[in-house]
Amino acid sequence: SLSHFLESDGVDATLITFSLVNSVGALKNCLDLFAKYEIDLSRIDSKPSPSDRSAYDFNVEAPLGADEDRIKQVVEELKKTCTSVHVIGRSSLARVPWYPQKISDLDKFTHKTLAYGSELAADHPGFTDEAYRRRRLEITSIAANYKHGQEIPRVSYNESEIQTWGQVYSRLRSLYNTHACKQHRHVFPLLERYCGYGPDNIPQLQDVSNFLKECTGWSLRPVSGLLTPRDFLNGLAFRVFHSTQYIRHHSRPFYTPEPDVCHELLGHVPLFSDPEFADFSQEIGIASLGASDEDIEKLASCYWFTVEFGLCNEDDTVKVFGAGLLSSFGELEYSLTDVPVKVPFDPFKAATTKYPITEYQPLYFVAKSFNAAKRQMREFARTLQRPFDVYYNPLTQSIQVLDSPQKIAMLSSQIQSQLALLTHSLISLGERQK
Amino acid sequence: SLSHFLESDGVDATLITFSLVNSVGALKNCLDLFAKYEIDLSRIDSKPSPSDRSAYDFNVEAPLGADEDRIKQVVEELKKTCTSVHVIGRSSLARVPWYPQKISDLDKFTHKTLAYGSELAADHPGFTDEAYRRRRLEITSIAANYKHGQEIPRVSYNESEIQTWGQVYSRLRSLYNTHACKQHRHVFPLLERYCGYGPDNIPQLQDVSNFLKECTGWSLRPVSGLLTPRDFLNGLAFRVFHSTQYIRHHSRPFYTPEPDVCHELLGHVPLFSDPEFADFSQEIGIASLGASDEDIEKLASCYWFTVEFGLCNEDDTVKVFGAGLLSSFGELEYSLTDVPVKVPFDPFKAATTKYPITEYQPLYFVAKSFNAAKRQMREFARTLQRPFDVYYNPLTQSIQVLDSPQKIAMLSSQIQSQLALLTHSLISLGERQK
Amino acid sequence: SLSHFLESDGVDATLITFSLVNSVGALKNCLDLFAKYEIDLSRIDSKPSPSDRSAYDFNVEAPLGADEDRIKQVVEELKKTCTSVHVIGRSSLARVPWYPQKISDLDKFTHKTLAYGSELAADHPGFTDEAYRRRRLEITSIAANYKHGQEIPRVSYNESEIQTWGQVYSRLRSLYNTHACKQHRHVFPLLERYCGYGPDNIPQLQDVSNFLKECTGWSLRPVSGLLTPRDFLNGLAFRVFHSTQYIRHHSRPFYTPEPDVCHELLGHVPLFSDPEFADFSQEIGIASLGASDEDIEKLASCYWFTVEFGLCNEDDTVKVFGAGLLSSFGELEYSLTDVPVKVPFDPFKAATTKYPITEYQPLYFVAKSFNAAKRQMREFARTLQRPFDVYYNPLTQSIQVLDSPQKIAMLSSQIQSQLALLTHSLISLGERQK
Amino acid sequence: SLSHFLESDGVDATLITFSLVNSVGALKNCLDLFAKYEIDLSRIDSKPSPSDRSAYDFNVEAPLGADEDRIKQVVEELKKTCTSVHVIGRSSLARVPWYPQKISDLDKFTHKTLAYGSELAADHPGFTDEAYRRRRLEITSIAANYKHGQEIPRVSYNESEIQTWGQVYSRLRSLYNTHACKQHRHVFPLLERYCGYGPDNIPQLQDVSNFLKECTGWSLRPVSGLLTPRDFLNGLAFRVFHSTQYIRHHSRPFYTPEPDVCHELLGHVPLFSDPEFADFSQEIGIASLGASDEDIEKLASCYWFTVEFGLCNEDDTVKVFGAGLLSSFGELEYSLTDVPVKVPFDPFKAATTKYPITEYQPLYFVAKSFNAAKRQMREFARTLQRPFDVYYNPLTQSIQVLDSPQKIAMLSSQIQSQLALLTHSLISLGERQK
Repeated sequence: SLSHFLESDGVDATLITFSLVNSVGALKNCLDLFAKYEIDLSRIDSKPSPSDRSAYDFNVEAPLGADEDRIKQVVEELKKTCTSVHVIGRSSLARVPWYPQKISDLDKFTHKTLAYGSELAADHPGFTDEAYRRRRLEITSIAANYKHGQEIPRVSYNESEIQTWGQVYSRLRSLYNTHACKQHRHVFPLLERYCGYGPDNIPQLQDVSNFLKECTGWSLRPVSGLLTPRDFLNGLAFRVFHSTQYIRHHSRPFYTPEPDVCHELLGHVPLFSDPEFADFSQEIGIASLGASDEDIEKLASCYWFTVEFGLCNEDDTVKVFGAGLLSSFGELEYSLTDVPVKVPFDPFKAATTKYPITEYQPLYFVAKSFNAAKRQMREFARTLQRPFDVYYNPLTQSIQVLDSPQKIAMLSSQIQSQLALLTHSLISLGERQK
Repeated sequence: SLSHFLESDGVDATLITFSLVNSVGALKNCLDLFAKYEIDLSRIDSKPSPSDRSAYDFNVEAPLGADEDRIKQVVEELKKTCTSVHVIGRSSLARVPWYPQKISDLDKFTHKTLAYGSELAADHPGFTDEAYRRRRLEITSIAANYKHGQEIPRVSYNESEIQTWGQVYSRLRSLYNTHACKQHRHVFPLLERYCGYGPDNIPQLQDVSNFLKECTGWSLRPVSGLLTPRDFLNGLAFRVFHSTQYIRHHSRPFYTPEPDVCHELLGHVPLFSDPEFADFSQEIGIASLGASDEDIEKLASCYWFTVEFGLCNEDDTVKVFGAGLLSSFGELEYSLTDVPVKVPFDPFKAATTKYPITEYQPLYFVAKSFNAAKRQMREFARTLQRPFDVYYNPLTQSIQVLDSPQKIAMLSSQIQSQLALLTHSLISLGERQK
Repeated sequence: SLSHFLESDGVDATLITFSLVNSVGALKNCLDLFAKYEIDLSRIDSKPSPSDRSAYDFNVEAPLGADEDRIKQVVEELKKTCTSVHVIGRSSLARVPWYPQKISDLDKFTHKTLAYGSELAADHPGFTDEAYRRRRLEITSIAANYKHGQEIPRVSYNESEIQTWGQVYSRLRSLYNTHACKQHRHVFPLLERYCGYGPDNIPQLQDVSNFLKECTGWSLRPVSGLLTPRDFLNGLAFRVFHSTQYIRHHSRPFYTPEPDVCHELLGHVPLFSDPEFADFSQEIGIASLGASDEDIEKLASCYWFTVEFGLCNEDDTVKVFGAGLLSSFGELEYSLTDVPVKVPFDPFKAATTKYPITEYQPLYFVAKSFNAAKRQMREFARTLQRPFDVYYNPLTQSIQVLDSPQKIAMLSSQIQSQLALLTHSLISLGERQK
Repeated sequence: SLSHFLESDGVDATLITFSLVNSVGALKNCLDLFAKYEIDLSRIDSKPSPSDRSAYDFNVEAPLGADEDRIKQVVEELKKTCTSVHVIGRSSLARVPWYPQKISDLDKFTHKTLAYGSELAADHPGFTDEAYRRRRLEITSIAANYKHGQEIPRVSYNESEIQTWGQVYSRLRSLYNTHACKQHRHVFPLLERYCGYGPDNIPQLQDVSNFLKECTGWSLRPVSGLLTPRDFLNGLAFRVFHSTQYIRHHSRPFYTPEPDVCHELLGHVPLFSDPEFADFSQEIGIASLGASDEDIEKLASCYWFTVEFGLCNEDDTVKVFGAGLLSSFGELEYSLTDVPVKVPFDPFKAATTKYPITEYQPLYFVAKSFNAAKRQMREFARTLQRPFDVYYNPLTQSIQVLDSPQKIAMLSSQIQSQLALLTHSLISLGERQK
């Protein structure tokens, strides 16, 4: 889920990326530079540069506390022999805030949850329940120890937890046929058949993640509580949805002050199986990479009014796709009445519209379609302040910055390859249809 | 590596795929069909159809021994209500032999290794060495138990193993600067720096796999011995290279009758870090999916003369990229002398050229470039017998068959999306360059 | 300009198109068929089929009065040996109304003008002016005799005509800086400098056409009066704008009941120099090819509310791009006041909105941008009844129907070619920028 | 046809192109600059810049004799306020030799024919025939007066001319079935039926041009004699083939020292109706725009060995597509015997291979296919010295230089538009096929 408290965030490291043409000793000299300026690097990554066969691309990380002046000097020297020298992070030298370069960088968010997690607020229904608090700690430790690439450990939910789930499940299930958008209704029977969705079972995140991966390449990653908006949105760029694994307190099955596994599995997961919604969601994530704090707030707002509380046109009527609505039967029913105001989705407006977080929304945005919403988000993203375009490469699950003709040529070349396949498949199809 | 003994293979199941439009009871009726014809399904997969928002795509598996007549009847009935009904496998009803639909299907190859593995042939150097045989069993059990998605367990190599490795490593390393192609020379320093390549250490498959994944999306998967050509080539379609994890017998460090970790890590791995070679290799894999036995033999031959024993033009000279050469210093040196015949790479010729497997090659094919080779492979693949084109979707890591306008439209739509990003990145770049 | 009286139209011929594989005698046999059924063909066109190298594409025309039954029999026989057999025209066998296949087919509209032309209505200011009527006949005979490919003969305008023009010109020119959209303001100085635009000269259609051709590939074609909406819109598909060449009666310089050269040159021409408006206009034309009568009415309405009376957003304000407004200073001023209603352009609404033709519009649609309008028109066009997509090939200036995988493969192949050029130009640019 | 005598050429003007952002007085100031430096411009062209909506693109021409120093000063001043300032021509300031910017620039070649034309060499069969010389002058004056956009005047061939034609026609016609490539054989019946090809009639260039235009967008333009290689090749970039209109001397019907209408119509024209050959030919033309003299020589050589004297693979045999062979029965027969050497077409080799011009070729290059040849030409063109890529825009029939991200973005945007059409036509096709 998403925190609506805007906090400055970002990894406390300064990331320096550069490309260096391979020549005798070049690699060594380059790294010696850092030693010369007494900068201890917390990470050094390099690989053959995809856009220049004779060069290497470097990602080098100087940790929190590294001397700014010395970093500045290293960067100046690097610029003499390297190309594409960029600084990312909170350093005054950086052109943008830090953002994950590859999917395993999401591991860095693990210890940065803002709220809840294993600790509960005083007004949380389970605040005084010691057993619940211990259980919370037990479950969230999975997230605390999780690393990209691992399987998500399964949780053996107890009877009370399953019962709580069951109550929420049954209450909502009856509303989906009339209120949920067709994409949700379409996949739900499959979730029931193949992912263990049912009133008597809480699905396991790994099973659900496997299912989503096969549908649209989205995957789940366990999180212990709320991430900052920046971190959460950044994850979406990699088609990764950070999901809680614990469940609300049994004393109030129809209330939760925080996201929990009911909200994630019933509200969010079904939509991610739809290719167009999948694309749309990733679009918001990609826009958030390296965005300014101001722009993160706008994107978070767009996210709120779509992924969490969005309505959509469906034939001549309006249905619900927002997860916050799909997991809250009270507001689910309310949202399709005449009471709230409904306006066509426009990210330029949604970006700056204020919203309450503890009461029903007085206003909802209605998306025309997920494809239209994706196009609108792209248009909106173009007006943001980030000084470069990025491309998510699904093969390497990493971000490529498109800031030079050669790099854009790489993307162009990949497109050519797919187009050649498309042309040929048409010729084949034509021959078979004769 | 690759077996050069052609064996019939394929999973012993019959896979039936079809699309069904979602309507009340449709899902249930469909699956009831199989029950009606008393066909026990070993697997049922379904997900929302990406090319038809109102339908589900099904993959249903009937195991070995399932009655052919009943399968036929089910298929006939399915055709009345479903679209895109296809049968894949060894069944007489199938239009093509079985091939993996998604990356986790590679798990099916685990128990299908042809030769060696934990058992050694009588002429194997380690045949009489009990300790070596036990060690072989120990190491190959990793592969025997491996499932897609897991980390590859690390092997604690002993002193003898490391010493054997070291001898091979040092001998070959000295030849690379003069004999290996530039792609190999370019990445080797990085492998030394980041993946534990060195005379005193045998790199771990997981570390190497992580590195390759970030370069080109290729990954390693442990295998206990030789797979059939079909299975091995099929793996390449998913950018998966099946790699052994054991090492040759210490008594003959410069000889091995089988692929071993020296061959894999020194011969194969470096090339996979190159984007063009990566594309080329996947092209062979994609061509092998559902290919006839005859065509598998041709593709295996192309593979032999490129990935295992290929030479390539480099400036005005010729260099080596074939793994079989790069891991065998004797033949490595021999290959660039005037003794062997060298002809320009042409898959149409390579496909039907015979080759010895226990002696130096009398003839090598010289690729103009990996891009040219990729284009040539595609051209060749078009002449093969498979009645449909396939597309590998990197997001879902699964194969999509392009046999209808709607499915091709999906690919077209993805291309549009990337092109929109490309156009915009050009506009941005232009604005920044003003 | 455009007639707003909907009349049934279409060439009085029945067009039969088909593809025939070339074999000994095939060509002859095919044409003998028509003789056998005693159908005199008014035209026979054939050329090598671009999508099938072994076939010919035929366009064969049977004139008005050709026996329907016999045409039906020929078509049945053709279907046995030919592919892509289609009938176009008013025949009951036709799947769509006639539409021009290539740019020279526009010659067929010459004698189909509905109103005015050389004859004037009784309420026309020049109705009683014999000299004016003779002059009208003299000028419109140019259009009556015009054939595609010829230069448009120049008109020696007399003093009275130039004076009338001058009055209109000066009055409007003063309003353009404040009321006209930026595209109009941007090109007007060039029209003044290079196309003879000025208060003392009436520009020649050929000069203006040459200028537009170099800007966006649009060209002018002289017309003697109002065409049917279908014919006029069909012309737009070829980037051809049918333009009158005569001028209104001198007695009422600020009034005209019909389009005249002031309206065409001051209202329409400047916008056609803008690439995005050019694309948008062609989009409407392409949608009109073979459209049903009902859909022609909708498209004509969309045309009315954009090309003739459209407003557009420009920064934070609204400007004018509709030719009917740009050539009528009274309504030009009125349109930007608060009096008329202004709504965002939506072809789905504009298609069915009624409008007056002899008074100021009470409602205007405001386009967000020409690119957005083009995309909206495409989306709208998809809901129309025509059973195939068409592609305008600018090289051959003819229409290609995209109704088979092979034909779509041709388009795909052309796109590939352009993409290869794009990739290479990026690589070159990158190298030069190093 | 093509001259094989390399002469320096190029229009004797210096062309300066630049883009200027539109602001008050900008246009005027810019042109005042030239006046200030006392440079009389022979031409000023401007139009709205397609890649920058707020700018104009200028093409300004200073004639032969314009002072180099003053041009240099103007260019320096222009660079302060304008972008994309380029000089083209023989001036020492130019980055490339002059080349036509738009199709009407081909008019500049009219008075630049090198040889023959109306004058004959002493060894020409018709040298002493006064009537023939007068006839030659009469016919070539058509070309001398021809301007782009006009119809090509028809020639009333006399009996002697028709007889000469008839002899050549009949002799060659009998060889085409066995020697000509399939593309030639495929279209010839259509040329006979629709373009007046026959032993008793010499086809008119305009009719043939109309036919080709509808096939592939190629057109003919009358020329009075041999153009320089540069001019002739430049024409190909616009899909314009310069064609003679006169016929050889009747005394030697089977011999001609120069191209004539037999060579053009029987040798060249049929191939231009094939889309792949059409693309290939244009590729050579595009490569020639602004090429160095050295590169023109290479391209002329490639042209010689393909368009004039090329052979091609066809199934398991070899056929002829070169016009010089198809119009000379002696060499046509000879070329497919075992006497001449035949090698696979490789532009890198063909570019530097010497060839005789008055005897049969000792060596022919055999193209694999026209598509392969086109790809090879592109690859070859990339190695040439021109410092920018160009794109031929078929809508405006003009050349666009792709030397900035914005300009490349324009091409990218056009590709997007076509791709959107392609995707939609696939969706429609899919729906209709259900």
